[in-house]
Amino acid sequence: MTSSFYPPQRTLMGPGPSDINPRISSAMARPTIGHLDPLFVGMMDEVKGLLQYAFQTSNELTIPISAPGSAGMECCFVNLIEPGDTVIICQNGVFGGRMKENVERCGGTAVMVHDQWGSACEPQKLEDALKLHPQAVAVAFVQAETSTGVSTDVKTLVDLAHRYDCLAIVDAVTSLGGTELRVDEWKIDAIYSGTQKCLSCTPGLSPVSFSQRAVDVIKKRKSTVQSWFLNLNLVMGYWGSGSKRAYHHTAPVNALYALHEALVILEEEGLENAWARHALNHNALKAGIEALGLSFVVPQANRLPQLNAVTIPEGIDDAAVRTALLNDYNLEIGAGLGPMAGKVWRIGLMGYAARKDNVLLCLSALDEVLTRMHAPVNQGKAVSAALATYAQ
Amino acid sequence: MTSSFYPPQRTLMGPGPSDINPRISSAMARPTIGHLDPLFVGMMDEVKGLLQYAFQTSNELTIPISAPGSAGMECCFVNLIEPGDTVIICQNGVFGGRMKENVERCGGTAVMVHDQWGSACEPQKLEDALKLHPQAVAVAFVQAETSTGVSTDVKTLVDLAHRYDCLAIVDAVTSLGGTELRVDEWKIDAIYSGTQKCLSCTPGLSPVSFSQRAVDVIKKRKSTVQSWFLNLNLVMGYWGSGSKRAYHHTAPVNALYALHEALVILEEEGLENAWARHALNHNALKAGIEALGLSFVVPQANRLPQLNAVTIPEGIDDAAVRTALLNDYNLEIGAGLGPMAGKVWRIGLMGYAARKDNVLLCLSALDEVLTRMHAPVNQGKAVSAALATYAQ
Repeated sequence: MTSSFYPPQRTLMGPGPSDINPRISSAMARPTIGHLDPLFVGMMDEVKGLLQYAFQTSNELTIPISAPGSAGMECCFVNLIEPGDTVIICQNGVFGGRMKENVERCGGTAVMVHDQWGSACEPQKLEDALKLHPQAVAVAFVQAETSTGVSTDVKTLVDLAHRYDCLAIVDAVTSLGGTELRVDEWKIDAIYSGTQKCLSCTPGLSPVSFSQRAVDVIKKRKSTVQSWFLNLNLVMGYWGSGSKRAYHHTAPVNALYALHEALVILEEEGLENAWARHALNHNALKAGIEALGLSFVVPQANRLPQLNAVTIPEGIDDAAVRTALLNDYNLEIGAGLGPMAGKVWRIGLMGYAARKDNVLLCLSALDEVLTRMHAPVNQGKAVSAALATYAQ
Repeated sequence: MTSSFYPPQRTLMGPGPSDINPRISSAMARPTIGHLDPLFVGMMDEVKGLLQYAFQTSNELTIPISAPGSAGMECCFVNLIEPGDTVIICQNGVFGGRMKENVERCGGTAVMVHDQWGSACEPQKLEDALKLHPQAVAVAFVQAETSTGVSTDVKTLVDLAHRYDCLAIVDAVTSLGGTELRVDEWKIDAIYSGTQKCLSCTPGLSPVSFSQRAVDVIKKRKSTVQSWFLNLNLVMGYWGSGSKRAYHHTAPVNALYALHEALVILEEEGLENAWARHALNHNALKAGIEALGLSFVVPQANRLPQLNAVTIPEGIDDAAVRTALLNDYNLEIGAGLGPMAGKVWRIGLMGYAARKDNVLLCLSALDEVLTRMHAPVNQGKAVSAALATYAQ
């Protein structure tokens, strides 16, 4: 016989899932009602409105996809790209590579514009590619690369895409709710995110938003969308406006309660205040990390507050440190991905995790564990450096 | 400002989501931990083992897909079907039609074998189609048609498929945990289900299982699987055995807690006992429905215990009755789908909802509401007929 599973209470400071606000866990446990229940349909409308606020958009097609962020990415590509289309992808980490996979699986051609891992996407390189590939129909890139913690200038890249008559598709999985993002003002055509990052909600849903221009492209498609589950024309029959909702798939009712509560919390705090909170806690963490003697992968100017990639000191065993943090402090930080595996740690300050007690715990624990493992760190300086930042 | 959402406590006796066992809601609210946390990976292994029990299979590739049942359906088709493949689909309700959509979106040809809505799939018709289309690579059908409440003889159809060298793909969304299902003994090659039916878990995940023969087909594919999110070769890197799990997508951690608990409850009860409980409560409901003077859509022999399609009496307003049940009794029953809209109600007895108090509530409420609306029913007989069945 298998026993019920009782997870420990961890502090989640990796690349996501992030710490969950207890209000969100409570919301998730509320009674399940039918996915066509009038009260549920009313809640869905509120979720759409709250997502419009989080994305800073009035796009009518702003909904959560009933699956994780990678399905949100797939939703953008399968609806917007047709066989034979060329898409220019700016890649500076793991997730640009996943975009390429998606474009090719749609029968499209991906033109890759590479920047180093840890660097922002370079506008000039994108413009060169746009000149070289005038047939391109879309440009895609990641605002906040979760694999490295680098931020890319969305507005500049979107403007470039539009100047060459391309749609702009943006990955905002790690940015939504954590750093400045203005879908309408920046004229983004298609965007997807995840719930488990700076919304600090449970993982499993992917908020997306599409501009009217993107919707027009979808409506004028010559070929059928290859995914039934992610076909927006069908999904919209359920999420669309009015009281008449057509059954498409069974919505993940309780996960949507959780997302609703996460978005209510964000609205209560105010989007700009949430961005400022992420910045403040990042500054405190940064002061502590630097006081320890560790360094960041990403140059200051392009560093994301919510995802801090820190170089592992020479000779220190990555896994041993993370295991000690997990076992002795119930603290999760992230490993490096791909070429950065074993070379960096990724410390998340996302959503509910972006707060003073988490920063202090993380710095105290790193200080003790690294000292214990004879790493070349300045013992005992990190916490006070962070506190000095909060006191400013 | 938007307020937190507090849903009412409904009794869910529609086509799903079904009533949630309170133990499952509690499990869902437990602390989120990382999707690569060793304790989480251990729980994932338990989920796989418990799903093998629920499916009665030793298939290694037995996992929950991180999205609802329709994504589980899509997962089966995108992994097994290649462009140019012919698939024979037995359709006797809504979900066979959805299979056709999936096959065509994979670039395959769907040969449809139609049976009337409310009838089981007819083996002779399938055999005729298999003879006529020797190039077919797979046969697909629904074990428990949620749109009509009819049960189809899986073993016979699977045997036929194999005799003509086809894979057998089975939709078990509404059957898993509710009626007899033996994946290994019946030699099913690919099967998908949902969490929100007879497992009475929250909606949002889709358990799937694939035989070795199906896995071999996937491994020998000539074309790339068109979905990145649902590509089993990639998904298996995360759900595969051993302690080394590769990140694919972020698993819906809390939804998996819920599924784990639902499966623990099923194991505690015992699968055969769960099937017997569904049958018993169906018999009691049936006695009550017939005592009221209402009739079933599906002939007795092929009737599913967990989904009862009942003909709406002449002149009675479908929506008015369902609204009265919802508002006056907090009771949800389902509407008809497609050609059955307005003609039938679908009363679910799934998982935790398959119990005596639900049956008695449903019959009492229907009795009162139908009498109030001057329907030609035998007032006051239903509950005692049900109780007599329980007393046998």
